[in-house]
Amino acid sequence: MSLGEFDLIERYFWRPPGQGARHSLVGNGDDCAVLTPAFGHHLAISTDTLVEGRHFLSTVDPARLGHKALAVNLSDLAACGARPLAFTLALTLPRVDEAWLTAFAQGLLALADAHDCELIGGDTTSGPLSIGITVMGEVKAGGALLRSGAQPGDDLWVSGYPGVARLALEGFRDTLEPPLSGLDFRLARDVLERPHPRVALGLALQGLAHAAIDVSDGLLGDLAHVLRRSDVGAELALDALPVHTVLAHRTRETQLDCILAGGDDYELLFTTAPADREAVLARATQAGVAVSRIGRIQADAGLRLFTGVLDEPAEAGRRQWVDNRWTSFDHFKT
Amino acid sequence: MSLGEFDLIERYFWRPPGQGARHSLVGNGDDCAVLTPAFGHHLAISTDTLVEGRHFLSTVDPARLGHKALAVNLSDLAACGARPLAFTLALTLPRVDEAWLTAFAQGLLALADAHDCELIGGDTTSGPLSIGITVMGEVKAGGALLRSGAQPGDDLWVSGYPGVARLALEGFRDTLEPPLSGLDFRLARDVLERPHPRVALGLALQGLAHAAIDVSDGLLGDLAHVLRRSDVGAELALDALPVHTVLAHRTRETQLDCILAGGDDYELLFTTAPADREAVLARATQAGVAVSRIGRIQADAGLRLFTGVLDEPAEAGRRQWVDNRWTSFDHFKT
Repeated sequence: MSLGEFDLIERYFWRPPGQGARHSLVGNGDDCAVLTPAFGHHLAISTDTLVEGRHFLSTVDPARLGHKALAVNLSDLAACGARPLAFTLALTLPRVDEAWLTAFAQGLLALADAHDCELIGGDTTSGPLSIGITVMGEVKAGGALLRSGAQPGDDLWVSGYPGVARLALEGFRDTLEPPLSGLDFRLARDVLERPHPRVALGLALQGLAHAAIDVSDGLLGDLAHVLRRSDVGAELALDALPVHTVLAHRTRETQLDCILAGGDDYELLFTTAPADREAVLARATQAGVAVSRIGRIQADAGLRLFTGVLDEPAEAGRRQWVDNRWTSFDHFKT
Repeated sequence: MSLGEFDLIERYFWRPPGQGARHSLVGNGDDCAVLTPAFGHHLAISTDTLVEGRHFLSTVDPARLGHKALAVNLSDLAACGARPLAFTLALTLPRVDEAWLTAFAQGLLALADAHDCELIGGDTTSGPLSIGITVMGEVKAGGALLRSGAQPGDDLWVSGYPGVARLALEGFRDTLEPPLSGLDFRLARDVLERPHPRVALGLALQGLAHAAIDVSDGLLGDLAHVLRRSDVGAELALDALPVHTVLAHRTRETQLDCILAGGDDYELLFTTAPADREAVLARATQAGVAVSRIGRIQADAGLRLFTGVLDEPAEAGRRQWVDNRWTSFDHFKT
């Protein structure tokens, strides 16, 4: 980055020494930041950009936008089982708005502090509003959770209650009947605008999960990535899906649309050996996150959805197989 | 990144194994890439975004744009003395244009290959065209070239021939008299659109340069950063500035405007001990880059410009002191 462009970031985002995390060896404002992972660890890196009109509306609270811009990146670290260290910020702004920048920085840095993640550099440009963040974390050598490790027989799990972010989006679009209102709207909107990356869960799943991904594009879309990368298939029990309270009094169709194809959830989808069920529940509890067992990895390629009891064998003949009418969320299709 | 968004990058930017650099432990397409610096090395990280209408015109050759987007980031690594390892790419595109993407990827990856720098991740979004790159390199522990190390008595050097990119820009704007045309225009345009990051020089200066910065915002603007960070001042001999052949038949005013305040040069500005002059010249020759000694670091704050001979003492009384009418380039001011 250059300092000329960095001045703006320095003014709004700089922290006095001793305040906020310090993982870098060279602070803000040189040509490069210098970082080193702890002995026996590698660096995990991910990048995500939020663009106005595509990922958020111009009316969004800037503090929430700052939170979310970092949260979606931390979620990628969580899916790898990495501990956050540092991030860079590339900010494109239509103009310099002091109040906006102050609030944006506050939301961003509060989440950064909560995860001990240091802002080590960035640049500012004038142009249509977008926020690009590249986040770096450390992960034990050989310990990264990948998409490619799912094995036949594995349990399939999801954290939290996916689907709420999509419900909020449909609430904003006013496509729901009855409309989303009152406390339900506020709750759902909070999930959409201030997602909580599952960093603690990702760390807790190290040595336990065979495969993991964060649910950003919709549960079935992201599951498809795991199945493809791991060269396996899966069966998924629709009745085992966790249903958030704000979705509870919606039609089953709306529930499933939101949960299976919603996107923007930032929950973790992961697989573990059946022998580790107790350990998964114990560690998830320790990480403060609910997890639900929703399916099973199988050797046969493809995804099979059904209604009925997950642990009752298909041979019992009481499953209803359900056509998969949910497809992955794609920014160029929507 | 998510694979849904990554599909586009995978389609245009993916390299078969064995082709292109391989520094990452986890390839494209997982939630994170995993990278580790060599033993005794740290990771140097920098980020820069190019936005259409601000940093380039919509008419620019996409192959050149791909080259430049990575080049400006590699230049930051060069200024740190770091060896390129890997980069992430955040691409915001108004639409999917196959020919454009193919050419852009070609220009980008050709430069990446030339510097052994691997594309390890990214994301694609639809929106106004912008290109965000975060680049990572490795630098010996304690060996990073910083802006803060300049010492009184140091020689001040610049690589190459700054000012040509600005001449090209003024050529495009048609503000030059006589207009820039023919071979001169093509030469200057090539410097503007296909800058060559001074990575080899940055590596060669390790253990030699006390301070370094890349000249992206204009020579005097970037020099000011070094002086401020190092808490020193400098004197600069205008007559010692290298003048590129395409600038040679311009007025002295145009020459100095371009050289001192041009920006977009991506040359290195650095300081070394006077005892190391021979070593600097030898190593620069080895790196294939011309370097010019243009001034001297001084204990007194501020920057003093003069015409006359750099090595003749001020006491000889033949210097003409020149007012500094060149200020730093700022994206929010231009």
